[in-house]
Amino acid sequence: MEVDDLISSSKLVKHWPSLLLGLGLIWILKNWFFNGNRRYRDAGKSYSVENQEEAEEDDLEDLEDELQPALEEKPHVPFVPGQNLNPNGAKQFYELMRGRRSIRSFKSHPKPDLSVIEDCIRAAGTSPSGAHTEPWTFCVVESSEVKQSIREIVEQEELINYSQRMHPQWVTDLRPLQTSYIKEYLTDAPYLILIFKQTYGLSKDGKRKRHYYNEISTSISAGLLLCALQAAGLSSLVTTPLNCGPALRSLLKRPTNEKLLILLPVGYPKDGCTVPDLERKNLLDIMVLF
Amino acid sequence: MEVDDLISSSKLVKHWPSLLLGLGLIWILKNWFFNGNRRYRDAGKSYSVENQEEAEEDDLEDLEDELQPALEEKPHVPFVPGQNLNPNGAKQFYELMRGRRSIRSFKSHPKPDLSVIEDCIRAAGTSPSGAHTEPWTFCVVESSEVKQSIREIVEQEELINYSQRMHPQWVTDLRPLQTSYIKEYLTDAPYLILIFKQTYGLSKDGKRKRHYYNEISTSISAGLLLCALQAAGLSSLVTTPLNCGPALRSLLKRPTNEKLLILLPVGYPKDGCTVPDLERKNLLDIMVLF
Repeated sequence: MEVDDLISSSKLVKHWPSLLLGLGLIWILKNWFFNGNRRYRDAGKSYSVENQEEAEEDDLEDLEDELQPALEEKPHVPFVPGQNLNPNGAKQFYELMRGRRSIRSFKSHPKPDLSVIEDCIRAAGTSPSGAHTEPWTFCVVESSEVKQSIREIVEQEELINYSQRMHPQWVTDLRPLQTSYIKEYLTDAPYLILIFKQTYGLSKDGKRKRHYYNEISTSISAGLLLCALQAAGLSSLVTTPLNCGPALRSLLKRPTNEKLLILLPVGYPKDGCTVPDLERKNLLDIMVLF
Repeated sequence: MEVDDLISSSKLVKHWPSLLLGLGLIWILKNWFFNGNRRYRDAGKSYSVENQEEAEEDDLEDLEDELQPALEEKPHVPFVPGQNLNPNGAKQFYELMRGRRSIRSFKSHPKPDLSVIEDCIRAAGTSPSGAHTEPWTFCVVESSEVKQSIREIVEQEELINYSQRMHPQWVTDLRPLQTSYIKEYLTDAPYLILIFKQTYGLSKDGKRKRHYYNEISTSISAGLLLCALQAAGLSSLVTTPLNCGPALRSLLKRPTNEKLLILLPVGYPKDGCTVPDLERKNLLDIMVLF
């Protein structure tokens, strides 16, 4: 029997649609399982930097001996302790911070001096960050027009968030805080500070620099900012406007490596301003000694 | 022609394997695209709470009118501003914080009083959190044995991290900081503070309570902790021990809803301690005014 005969008389010709479909099926299943495994592996990782690692691994094929650190390699210098060593410092700081409350109702006047806001951001900028990448940008908005545009973007999204995106339990959990999609503070507060995390940086030659733990680092620096605002007698509110990030990033013309993390209105509380009657957990509920 | 004839003579019988495979193919493609879209949608979401929402949606089928807020619904109370309103407060706070440096070398004595650490954690506990869930646990370790066990766990994992898990660029970026897998500070420092984020809480009746934005909230509270330590004249180092979370959680017998976020050694720097010769970004590099 010739090869031609073998082919023509074989089941190959008769059942080729089945075979083709079968092969397609195998290919798809392979892809499907591969993606499935990949998802599973991602879920097991504790730190977001790992996911970035994986995503960026492909375009980093440099040899190890060509790699240069993002920071300059200089000799280390002696550490000079600050002038503020104070055995009662922690207690005094706690007394300062325990007076802080999240304020949802701001007066437009008096407007704090911009230099005070600048000092607060300088303080936030002393925050530690993964491999000293300082992966944060603080956008300070005092223009009424820009505040109005921000309010429109946020209220439009928040209406959808409250009515459709947020789980009913979430909306219920927010009820004691008396929040809604109406955000008067976005135009009333003399300043809005929008904190962007930089998911990566760019070196002078245009190469991407990894920003390790950029979300944790930027959140820690937001903590320092809150302390500075409190030290200056200013009030604020930590908000994380759901799904507004891209529109606000476009409005403020921030580059694509920056993602909105937190939006803070900043100013003085309105006269007669009220706050939820909350209690904080006791020390024994948040601290465990070993 | 009878129906039976129609069926037996039809192409249905002849080509049933192809049809079956075709149907299978359609089902798989449908699933594939559905998951693909789902991944796409997830990528567009800025906040991890949304993913939690989705994951937990299935086991929450309560009717909306049965839902109870996690917080009690009480009338709001007047806001009383703190006693610390200080026009120079932000500047003074910046002067305090600019002296902070990450310290990698601690002396075991003198050991700061535990009451100072407690005040620092009290201050961290005043941090705001999503829907006032306060999703944090601070484990304070002063026992030498527990510190030794922690060091063993961390060094074992860090050896693998440095040699295998971390991208060569990451290891290179850490070179100017002179870090390695050897972590003497884990046994030298008089205290270790392990900060756990609580990914969910449990109400009195054992039901899961959602902890919105628990990682951002806990990181902000870590920022407050750093400020309190600095106010007390204590030094620390923010570390995020890669892949050590589960083992350290087991060691400290923390429940499964708690995930290690940050580990801080706390104490006084060793005499002659040096630090990397780093500069911080200027205000103009981190702040944009609108």
